[in-house]
Amino acid sequence: MDLHILDHKLRVTSISKTGLQQYTHPLIKLIFLRNRTRCKFFSLTETPENYTVVLDEEGFKELQPSEHLQVEGSTWLPLNVVSNGNASSSSQAVGVTKIAKSVIAPLAEQHVSVFMLSTYQTDFILVREKDLSVVVETLVEEFNIFREEGGESVPVHSQDACNGLQRNSREGETAVKERHTLPKNVWVPHATVHPVLIPENQFCVMSLDPDTLPAIATTLIDVLFYSNSPKEGASVDQDMECIKFFSFSLIEGYVSLVMDTEAQRQFPADLLFTSSSGELWRMVRIGGQPLGFDECGIVAQISQPLADSDISAYYISTFSFDHALVPEEDIASVTEMLQAQRKETSS
Amino acid sequence: MDLHILDHKLRVTSISKTGLQQYTHPLIKLIFLRNRTRCKFFSLTETPENYTVVLDEEGFKELQPSEHLQVEGSTWLPLNVVSNGNASSSSQAVGVTKIAKSVIAPLAEQHVSVFMLSTYQTDFILVREKDLSVVVETLVEEFNIFREEGGESVPVHSQDACNGLQRNSREGETAVKERHTLPKNVWVPHATVHPVLIPENQFCVMSLDPDTLPAIATTLIDVLFYSNSPKEGASVDQDMECIKFFSFSLIEGYVSLVMDTEAQRQFPADLLFTSSSGELWRMVRIGGQPLGFDECGIVAQISQPLADSDISAYYISTFSFDHALVPEEDIASVTEMLQAQRKETSS
Repeated sequence: MDLHILDHKLRVTSISKTGLQQYTHPLIKLIFLRNRTRCKFFSLTETPENYTVVLDEEGFKELQPSEHLQVEGSTWLPLNVVSNGNASSSSQAVGVTKIAKSVIAPLAEQHVSVFMLSTYQTDFILVREKDLSVVVETLVEEFNIFREEGGESVPVHSQDACNGLQRNSREGETAVKERHTLPKNVWVPHATVHPVLIPENQFCVMSLDPDTLPAIATTLIDVLFYSNSPKEGASVDQDMECIKFFSFSLIEGYVSLVMDTEAQRQFPADLLFTSSSGELWRMVRIGGQPLGFDECGIVAQISQPLADSDISAYYISTFSFDHALVPEEDIASVTEMLQAQRKETSS
Repeated sequence: MDLHILDHKLRVTSISKTGLQQYTHPLIKLIFLRNRTRCKFFSLTETPENYTVVLDEEGFKELQPSEHLQVEGSTWLPLNVVSNGNASSSSQAVGVTKIAKSVIAPLAEQHVSVFMLSTYQTDFILVREKDLSVVVETLVEEFNIFREEGGESVPVHSQDACNGLQRNSREGETAVKERHTLPKNVWVPHATVHPVLIPENQFCVMSLDPDTLPAIATTLIDVLFYSNSPKEGASVDQDMECIKFFSFSLIEGYVSLVMDTEAQRQFPADLLFTSSSGELWRMVRIGGQPLGFDECGIVAQISQPLADSDISAYYISTFSFDHALVPEEDIASVTEMLQAQRKETSS
């Protein structure tokens, strides 16, 4: 398999719920007005806590600093696994499950923090730029690694990680961390197993021809920017068992939307599409307290058992919590699995 | 003819050029999300100086006070002239020209300030609520006057103006002003004749099925909120002879757009429509210095000679200046007429 280090330098930010209004102007520009921005990587995810915005430096320039904007200090790079046809994987599962053993677990072993962003099209594994040499060294045995540069794919070898690549890293001098000597592909559960929340809503993972984005503009604007203000005539039946979660991304021209079935009903049915199986997904939210960015192994904690059972999963990290989406029909076994894991760790 | 006093209490406000960004959220709600607001009268006009926003009290609630928002102190009421078929007007002209002699001139005589808002559908004559009794007394001979109240048209008689109507006026006690004794329908030119500017751009006055408003949302948002930021790849050829002027209104469900032909090219040609004659209009901007709201007779100054020559005109007042739009083919004679008027006044 091939691993691509994409040509985007990303910032991970959070806008407070009450601060969203004042970011309406730049966000609408980034979402809808492609000829007014050079931003090529944009993702916005609403959770009950805040809005997580992940975007490249061109996009980041649009966000004025304010008390409502939190910015994680690092530059992050997106990695992307591409099956090149002759992969010997026997798994039928999709999403983060496919890369749990080959990428997620080895990086967790090496204490590399990852920030996951699954979309309709692919799964982006975000790593800190300063960790890049460790990442390359860790994954170079398993993957052909390429670095995207100005539209070209340049092969990366392990020694590059300690030489050439570091020129791109402003924090290169800290890139070679103390290494642990655990054998590869054996992930040892982290001491803390985070509590999980399994809300009742059903989610769908959808896409859209980017040329039809204008056709859903008012609906998308309504859902993203006004869904917390009362709607004329709408009854307020807040189901406390359901979670507010809506994710939109526009990455290299591809649109991905993750929303629950209630939000989906507001969109015209003929424009959004999903995979032919039309699956519905249930969410596992990870973390009782906001997770922070420095703990490693959080994605591994959940993706590893899913991989063992070959259960597909999307995975979306946000500023405060992580979110896995698993097929509706698997939620019972996933719940059981996670309970067993908790018991095992606490015993 | 009938004169209707419409059931909207309006505020006239101005948003500074640099402050528009922070009003993006409420303005997009008022323009596109009809099920989230009770606002029924909304108008936004961009000029080189600022954005003039005229809106009813429901809409006004959405605008948070800030250093970027100026609010004229009065409540304004929109009047609307309806030809009831048997009108004996021989004029073929449309717009403010039709009401120049019957409404504009008599109100100017009585020193009543008016704020004009022509749209594709009709011409609204805004008067201060406190002037209403004077307005009714002045116009009652010429018109059947009705007051719209909760969907009903209630006939208004002159004595009502001094009795019942004043209950609606918070400033009722000042409503009966000193009266002048000039004969009706003879407008005497105001001592100051304001300088006019005649920019080069050609304008069109258009409408749109309100149900197709979502289809032009991204274009309209782009033009309204982002046209002052540089466009990727666009050459900067600011023609200083052209003026920035764009007006959008959504009043009682009817959409009206006034824009120059350059802005028009950005919209899909099949959604916007204009009158069958497809006329282009030229602008006469009135005022070398911002006009303020207390001077009377500004509309009369230009509409009276247009009426004498039976030249159609739209008329849009803004926070700082007034704007008349006359047919392209009449601009030469209008220019001449205005020069003659200046000479006459100064001699």
